[in-house]
Amino acid sequence: MADTITSVHNPRVKDASRLRSGRGRTRQGRILIDGLREVQRALQAGVRLHEVFACAAPNDEPTRRELAVWERAGVPVFHVSPSVFSRLAYGDREQGVVAVAQAPERSLEELSVPADALVVVLEGVEKPGNVGAVVRTADAVGASAVLVADGATDLYNPNAIRASLGTVFTVPVCAADSLETLAWLRQHRLQIVATRVDGAAPYTQVSYRAPTAIVLGSEASGLSDVWRGPDVRAVALPMKGRADSLNVATTAAVVLYEALRQRQAAGGESGA
Amino acid sequence: MADTITSVHNPRVKDASRLRSGRGRTRQGRILIDGLREVQRALQAGVRLHEVFACAAPNDEPTRRELAVWERAGVPVFHVSPSVFSRLAYGDREQGVVAVAQAPERSLEELSVPADALVVVLEGVEKPGNVGAVVRTADAVGASAVLVADGATDLYNPNAIRASLGTVFTVPVCAADSLETLAWLRQHRLQIVATRVDGAAPYTQVSYRAPTAIVLGSEASGLSDVWRGPDVRAVALPMKGRADSLNVATTAAVVLYEALRQRQAAGGESGA
Repeated sequence: MADTITSVHNPRVKDASRLRSGRGRTRQGRILIDGLREVQRALQAGVRLHEVFACAAPNDEPTRRELAVWERAGVPVFHVSPSVFSRLAYGDREQGVVAVAQAPERSLEELSVPADALVVVLEGVEKPGNVGAVVRTADAVGASAVLVADGATDLYNPNAIRASLGTVFTVPVCAADSLETLAWLRQHRLQIVATRVDGAAPYTQVSYRAPTAIVLGSEASGLSDVWRGPDVRAVALPMKGRADSLNVATTAAVVLYEALRQRQAAGGESGA
Repeated sequence: MADTITSVHNPRVKDASRLRSGRGRTRQGRILIDGLREVQRALQAGVRLHEVFACAAPNDEPTRRELAVWERAGVPVFHVSPSVFSRLAYGDREQGVVAVAQAPERSLEELSVPADALVVVLEGVEKPGNVGAVVRTADAVGASAVLVADGATDLYNPNAIRASLGTVFTVPVCAADSLETLAWLRQHRLQIVATRVDGAAPYTQVSYRAPTAIVLGSEASGLSDVWRGPDVRAVALPMKGRADSLNVATTAAVVLYEALRQRQAAGGESGA
């Protein structure tokens, strides 16, 4: 094990800290992953780790054990001081692990489409925390993929990774533009259900038993006209209060769990 | 109209800026409300405004019109410079309105319980953003009340107000301890449905047509044993992914919309 890095001017630390910005990630093709659980999920998903920075308390056995596993697997582990760690970690934490990893890249062509496909499409959603929250819910319902169309944020923003609890690595996610995404959905014959504030049908009136894509836009601007085709079914959630919209992650959760409810009821699983 | 306040040392500004902290709010019995829409919702709900600080662009007609209405209604409006405004506003904004308001107080006894009551109980939820997000969803489904039991956060934290889009003023909300809350629910004969990771029944297996309280705990520690009585039905959401939990606001949204779905189906509204 190498000595503890105590200087924020260490070149390795400086390179890694540049990955906190979107520009740094694009330039280096690498990302930062904060947190033991998140790094574990990335590894399970086959993400390649370049190096790990750790600042673990002497009595933090779970972290020390995992670090030893990673070192044996050939991942360089650098121990750093609390001040160096807080430079690298999300939210000024002084303990834990931060990994530098190869940015996962997946194209639409690489996605598999199971017979019971349930795909989430997010168009123009800006807040990384919302993207991560949707991925977390997609994981929970066993969705097949999350497609970020015309994403104003990148999928591996630290806030997105964090809000997803690292499931952004285990759920198949992919960025593409809206027209490509629509063409891909049509090619795979997925039913397309778009949530809109002015959607004609209540979301509960649609059957989600067929392979389905649920399309959601940003709170600020909704969905673009790309999602107005004759094969796109527009649905809305009932809104009975003073506010006229829901958070996009909330909308996604309500529709995804309705899809799961219908599928389990159809499969006789509902009474399990 | 008074002169523009340009000094952050102005006593009125200093008093108001202390309301950004929970301690300041407790001491003064006042809260800060950021944003035009949020202040409007507070006013609609009968919240008393003490004063308003505004920093509006000369061409921001909607804000200027609303400020004029408030002034005519007797609310003192102080125009402040961008640097003073950023001291008062949430998130370093330099334009907009911030109101100092009387902290709303409501006890369980003051809550009305309609025949179709749908109440949300949050126990030990720490993050103000989560509390606000739950209130926003409670507003959307037309819930009767949100009760914060053993709240580790206060309902009028700026993050809670913001995440609720100001509906924390229009939805009846109330803080109480867990035992009082349970006694109140029993007294009003509400069906009590507690969401737990290890809940015995799927949440879709419960009928929400009777007057119902949906009880949710924090992600970190779940619900206390107060919610283990024989009249408390424990339910869970299916979890089919890698992560083993959902965000509390997500769970609340899924269960609340299932309750609404069942009630609308029963009432024949579902085909509307």
